[in-house]
Amino acid sequence: MDDVLLDHAHCEKKAASTALNLIFRYQYRSDLMVPLSEIAREELGHFELVLKVLNVRGIPFDRQRPSTYAPKLFSAVRGQEPEHFVDTMICCALIEARSCERMKLLAETLPDPKLAALYRGLLASEARHHQTYLDLAATQVPEDQVYARLDELAAHEATVLSVPGEDVRMHS
Amino acid sequence: MDDVLLDHAHCEKKAASTALNLIFRYQYRSDLMVPLSEIAREELGHFELVLKVLNVRGIPFDRQRPSTYAPKLFSAVRGQEPEHFVDTMICCALIEARSCERMKLLAETLPDPKLAALYRGLLASEARHHQTYLDLAATQVPEDQVYARLDELAAHEATVLSVPGEDVRMHS
Repeated sequence: MDDVLLDHAHCEKKAASTALNLIFRYQYRSDLMVPLSEIAREELGHFELVLKVLNVRGIPFDRQRPSTYAPKLFSAVRGQEPEHFVDTMICCALIEARSCERMKLLAETLPDPKLAALYRGLLASEARHHQTYLDLAATQVPEDQVYARLDELAAHEATVLSVPGEDVRMHS
Repeated sequence: MDDVLLDHAHCEKKAASTALNLIFRYQYRSDLMVPLSEIAREELGHFELVLKVLNVRGIPFDRQRPSTYAPKLFSAVRGQEPEHFVDTMICCALIEARSCERMKLLAETLPDPKLAALYRGLLASEARHHQTYLDLAATQVPEDQVYARLDELAAHEATVLSVPGEDVRMHS
């Protein structure tokens, strides 16, 4: 569980960084700025929350070998715009949904009531971010195209997840 | 004023990015994580605040040629650790102090009461971030060394600012 908590802290940090990098990459899309900034801000709040849990449990925050899940998932993102943007938004949406699933499992099965409550409390944000990323994808192509591509990328994600990771991680 | 507001939005975004990049660079320093995350989160909140002002004034957020102030200031940062860390913290502290000065001038002189109130409201955070960065510098070297180096880098900053920028910007 200590490994998962440390990975979780890194995931929140990485999620904030992904949203902020998107702000820099797409700064000519003024409509994206507020939703992406709100996501980045919320992920940083979660990062601080998990850091506090690590601190209470006496786990020092430090570097950790990351799961290969996210880079393998993003490898399917197409290079040209607007496909690049749409695929990136959908991959972010898939990560949020997968995090939501894993956190639900943790909330339901962890014997420590405080940790279970932490994950129960985070579920709603993950689900909300999932929808925000899909809504952002739909600013560039019609919604049916977003959902068709979501099916394709979800199939790719299933392939990625079919090979168990070497380490115990949030998405392994 | 529209140019300054647009530059201000970019400055808040850049300040968040700087704090988040420091989190990634120094993740083995667990004591830095919460203060830097709090700064990044607060800067993103200010970014959203300035975006709202831009929106009300009908100024589209978009790319803008940045002021040369920050890159010229950071050019004096030494390469080796712990000097690199200490100099980076002090340069961040100087930027916060300079922003504080400029925002005070705007708060005192802008005829638009709403804009003046915006800058009056942001002053306190800038001053607080200035102190946080100096405190972080002092986690690596004794305080008198921090203040001695602050004097040197403040002299460098004065040289940078002695050449007026080509564009009207927050720090030009």
